[in-house]
Amino acid sequence: DQSLVIAGRTFSSRLMTGTGKYPSLEVMQQSIVASGCEIVTVAVRRVQTKAPGHEGLAEAIDWGKIWMLPNTAGCKTAEEAVRVARLGREMAKLLGQEDNNFIKLEVIPDAKYLLPDPIGTLEAAQQLVKEGFAVLPYINADPLLARHLEDAGCVTVMPLGSPIGSGMGIRNIDNIRIIVEQAQIPVVVDAGIGTPSEAAAAMELGADALLINSAIALAQNPVFMAEAMGQATRAGRLAYLAGRIPCKAYASASSPLTGTIV
Amino acid sequence: DQSLVIAGRTFSSRLMTGTGKYPSLEVMQQSIVASGCEIVTVAVRRVQTKAPGHEGLAEAIDWGKIWMLPNTAGCKTAEEAVRVARLGREMAKLLGQEDNNFIKLEVIPDAKYLLPDPIGTLEAAQQLVKEGFAVLPYINADPLLARHLEDAGCVTVMPLGSPIGSGMGIRNIDNIRIIVEQAQIPVVVDAGIGTPSEAAAAMELGADALLINSAIALAQNPVFMAEAMGQATRAGRLAYLAGRIPCKAYASASSPLTGTIV
Amino acid sequence: DQSLVIAGRTFSSRLMTGTGKYPSLEVMQQSIVASGCEIVTVAVRRVQTKAPGHEGLAEAIDWGKIWMLPNTAGCKTAEEAVRVARLGREMAKLLGQEDNNFIKLEVIPDAKYLLPDPIGTLEAAQQLVKEGFAVLPYINADPLLARHLEDAGCVTVMPLGSPIGSGMGIRNIDNIRIIVEQAQIPVVVDAGIGTPSEAAAAMELGADALLINSAIALAQNPVFMAEAMGQATRAGRLAYLAGRIPCKAYASASSPLTGTIV
Amino acid sequence: DQSLVIAGRTFSSRLMTGTGKYPSLEVMQQSIVASGCEIVTVAVRRVQTKAPGHEGLAEAIDWGKIWMLPNTAGCKTAEEAVRVARLGREMAKLLGQEDNNFIKLEVIPDAKYLLPDPIGTLEAAQQLVKEGFAVLPYINADPLLARHLEDAGCVTVMPLGSPIGSGMGIRNIDNIRIIVEQAQIPVVVDAGIGTPSEAAAAMELGADALLINSAIALAQNPVFMAEAMGQATRAGRLAYLAGRIPCKAYASASSPLTGTIV
Repeated sequence: DQSLVIAGRTFSSRLMTGTGKYPSLEVMQQSIVASGCEIVTVAVRRVQTKAPGHEGLAEAIDWGKIWMLPNTAGCKTAEEAVRVARLGREMAKLLGQEDNNFIKLEVIPDAKYLLPDPIGTLEAAQQLVKEGFAVLPYINADPLLARHLEDAGCVTVMPLGSPIGSGMGIRNIDNIRIIVEQAQIPVVVDAGIGTPSEAAAAMELGADALLINSAIALAQNPVFMAEAMGQATRAGRLAYLAGRIPCKAYASASSPLTGTIV
Repeated sequence: DQSLVIAGRTFSSRLMTGTGKYPSLEVMQQSIVASGCEIVTVAVRRVQTKAPGHEGLAEAIDWGKIWMLPNTAGCKTAEEAVRVARLGREMAKLLGQEDNNFIKLEVIPDAKYLLPDPIGTLEAAQQLVKEGFAVLPYINADPLLARHLEDAGCVTVMPLGSPIGSGMGIRNIDNIRIIVEQAQIPVVVDAGIGTPSEAAAAMELGADALLINSAIALAQNPVFMAEAMGQATRAGRLAYLAGRIPCKAYASASSPLTGTIV
Repeated sequence: DQSLVIAGRTFSSRLMTGTGKYPSLEVMQQSIVASGCEIVTVAVRRVQTKAPGHEGLAEAIDWGKIWMLPNTAGCKTAEEAVRVARLGREMAKLLGQEDNNFIKLEVIPDAKYLLPDPIGTLEAAQQLVKEGFAVLPYINADPLLARHLEDAGCVTVMPLGSPIGSGMGIRNIDNIRIIVEQAQIPVVVDAGIGTPSEAAAAMELGADALLINSAIALAQNPVFMAEAMGQATRAGRLAYLAGRIPCKAYASASSPLTGTIV
Repeated sequence: DQSLVIAGRTFSSRLMTGTGKYPSLEVMQQSIVASGCEIVTVAVRRVQTKAPGHEGLAEAIDWGKIWMLPNTAGCKTAEEAVRVARLGREMAKLLGQEDNNFIKLEVIPDAKYLLPDPIGTLEAAQQLVKEGFAVLPYINADPLLARHLEDAGCVTVMPLGSPIGSGMGIRNIDNIRIIVEQAQIPVVVDAGIGTPSEAAAAMELGADALLINSAIALAQNPVFMAEAMGQATRAGRLAYLAGRIPCKAYASASSPLTGTIV
C-alpha cells in the first residue's frame, strides 16, 4: 500500500483524531496513542481562549511525533476563519512545528447542525491558498464543490458523513463515492462516524483517510474505542486494496456437490 | 475481554473461516493464517467425495492449531444431515482431534438461496444432541427458532446475515439483535458478510463470533481480505466493549465557544 | 389488474385493517371506511373477554360489507390457538357470516417483541386445515417456513415486516422478496408498517396485500392516515404492474443536446 | 390541507412532471393527465433545437391547464443558464402564458452524474432574480446553499434525491429533512425518485412537492406509473398531516389481555 501523502508530507496512519470532549487529558493522551494516529486536529480558538477542557491541552501532546492540524472551529465567516488560520500557524510554530502550514478550514454559520457554508468556505480557501497555507476544507459532500476547492489549490477535501458529533455514520455515501472517484487530492471523511464499522465502510469505498473525534472521546471507554477505530481504518483500507466480492441477489454454494456419500 | 467459549472449549479469536472456493490450497493456507482464526469449517461431503478443490484439503491444514468444525453442507433433510454429521466426527478423529464432537448443522433443501429449513434443522439438532454432538445450527435469523434450538441443547446458534456467498451483508439486523439479546449461548453470524465493515457491524451489536468464507476466498486478494476480516472482527468486539456514543439527529460541538479572540 | 383471491373469495382492496388501539369506535368506523378496506381482523380473545376498547366492537362494524378475519392474538401455544380459532368461527357465524372459515393464526409466546413461534404455528396450521379452516398464518419472514405452511394447505402466508406496532417498516425486505417469488398463495405483509411509503414499498416488490393496524389507529389523525394507507397500497400495486425503471449508479440525461442555441 | 403556493401562484397538485424520454407524445399526454399534475417542466434548449422527441412537444400540451416550468437543462455555466432562462420566458409567452416568469435553474457542468454547480447556480440565481424571474434552482441537498438561495430571493429550492434518471431514490434524507426544517419557501424534491414509495417518503418528511420525470416516462407502462406517482404524492402529504406513529425497537400489543377464555 502506498502511504497517505498530503501536501508532500507522508503519513503511515490514515486515521486522524481530535482533542475535544475527552473526560481528561490523560485519557486523551492514551487514546491518541491507542489509535495509532499521526495527525491531531486542534481548535485554535478553544486553545487561545482556554475554553473548558483546553487548558494545557496543546502542551499535553508530543508534537515531535504528532503532526498538528489547527482548525478554525467556531468561525462563522470566511473572514473570521482566515484570521484564525493565521493564529493557528503561529500556534504550530510556537509548539515547534516551524514548517507546519496545514489548516483545517471550517466556516460554520449554523449552530444546530454545524454544517459548513459552501460559499464562505470556498472564499476562505482561495485566500488561504494565496497566503501559502495547505488547506484542508471541511465540506458537505458536494462533488462539484469538492472540484472547485481542488481547483482552488486545496490539498484535501474533507466531506462530512453526517453532522459533527451525531454518530449517525455515513449518510450520503453516493456523494462521497463520487467525490472519491473524481478527486486527484486525498479525500478525508470527517464528522459523523460513530463506530468502527462506519469507519471501515468509508475506507472500503476508497476514502484516503478519516478524522474521528467524538466517537472516540465520548465513548464509554475512549481508549478501547480509539484502538478499535485504528484497527477498523486499517481493515477498511486493506479491504479496498484486496477487492471485495460482488453483491449478488442469490446464494452461491461452496462447490458443486456432484458426488454423494449417503 | 472474556474469551469465546463454545461447549466448554475456549477460543481467543472470534472469527471462523472456511475452506471452499479458494483459488489454491496455498492461498487457503495463507489466508487462514492471516485471518488469525482458530476454527475452520469443512464440508464433510465435499471432502469425502473429493469434490473439485477439496482433494488434499483436509491434509493441508494444521489441525494441531486449528479446531475443525465439520459441516453438513449439501444435506437437504434432517436424516441426511445426521448421517453426514456422524461421518464428520469420524473425519475429525482420523485427523487427530479425538475429542472433537462439534458439528455445524446445515439442512438446506433450497438450491437457489441456500436458506435453511427450520423444521428439519430442529429435528436433526434434537437427534444429534442425543448422540452427544456439540451442535452449531445454521439458521434464518428467527428469534423463536433460536430459542427452540437453545432449549434443545445446541451450543451456539448461527443466524445468517444474508444468503451464503451473496456478499449482501447483514440484512436482518433487528432479528439478529433480538437473538443476541435473548440467547444464553454464543451467537455466531454466518453467511452474507462481504466486507470488514459488515463484520465489524455484526460484532458491534453483540454477536459473539463470525463465520466468513466466500468474502475471503473469492476476494481478489484473499490473504489481504483475511487479514482485514480478522482486524475488523477484533475492532467490532472492542467497540462493543468500549460502548459507542448515542446517535443524535443534531450536531454536537466540541465545547462551548464563550470566549472570543477575533 | 387481477383481484386478490384468498381461499376462492375475491377482494378488490388489497389493504386489510384491524380494530385495536383506536381512540374510539367512531374513529375506528370512519377509518375503516376511509381506508377502503374489505377485510378487518378482530382479536377473538379480546372480544370474548370484553377487553378495554373491545366492548361493542364487533357490533360496530357492518359485516354485510366487511369480511371478518378473526385472529388468535394472545395465544402462546398451538393448542390455545386452535381453541380460539374455533371460537372465532362461532363468532363470525353469530355475526352473520355463516360461510366464514377464515382464521388469522398467531402463536406468540414472546411478550416483548410479539414474534411468532414457527414450530407452534406450523403445528396449529396443520390441525386447523384438517378442521376445514382457511388459515392465514402470521410468521417471521422465513421462506422455508412459508413453504411448509403452503404445503400444509394454508391459504396465505403473512410475514411480518418488523415487530407488531413498532412502526419500523420492512426490515427484512430480501426475505419477503424471496417469499413472494416462491409462493403460489397470496403473500400478505403484516406488522411493522408505519407509513404509506413503507406500505407502497411492500406492494412494489410484489406483495399481494397488506395488513395495517397500529400505524392507522395510533396516528394523530387516524382517518387521514387510513386514507393515505389505502392510496399508498393502490399506488404500490399499480407501480408493480407498471414496471419500474432500473436503478443506475450514474445519471441519465433527458436527451442528447447535440444542437446549440446560445 | 393548505395548497402549494409558489411565487404567489396556487397549485392543488404537489407533483410536477417533465416531458423528456417518453416513448411518444401520446403517452406523454396521457401520463400527464393520469398524474394529475399542474406543472410540467420543459427543456428550453431541447425545444429550441428540436432535439429528438421534442418536435411538436410544446404544442402537445394544453397550456391553458398546465403551468409551464421552463428549465435550463444543458447549461454548463451561469452565463449560459441566464441566456436560456430569457429564451424560456419568451417561449412561455409565445405559448400563451404572458405572466409566466418561472424558471427551473440548472447549471450542470458534469455530464456523468448531472450534479449541479453550487457556485454557478447561486450566481445565476442572483442575476435572474434581479431580472424579475421566479427562480426554482436545482441543487445538491446542501442546507447552507439552500439558505443562500432563499436569501437571494429564489421562490423554491429543488434538492436532488439522487442523480437525474438514476432511480436510486432519496439517498441523502437527513440533509433534505434539514432543508425542509429551515426553509421558509417550498422545498421540491427533484431527481432520483424511482418508485411511488420513494415519492411518498419524500412527502412524509415534509417536502412541499416533487418533480418526477424519468421514473414515469421510462416505466414499462408510463400511464400507470404516472397515476401511481400522483396517488403516492397525495398519500405522503396526507400522512405528513396525519402524524405518523413513533418508531419503537419493541413490539406493542393491541391491548392488554387480562381476561382469559381458554
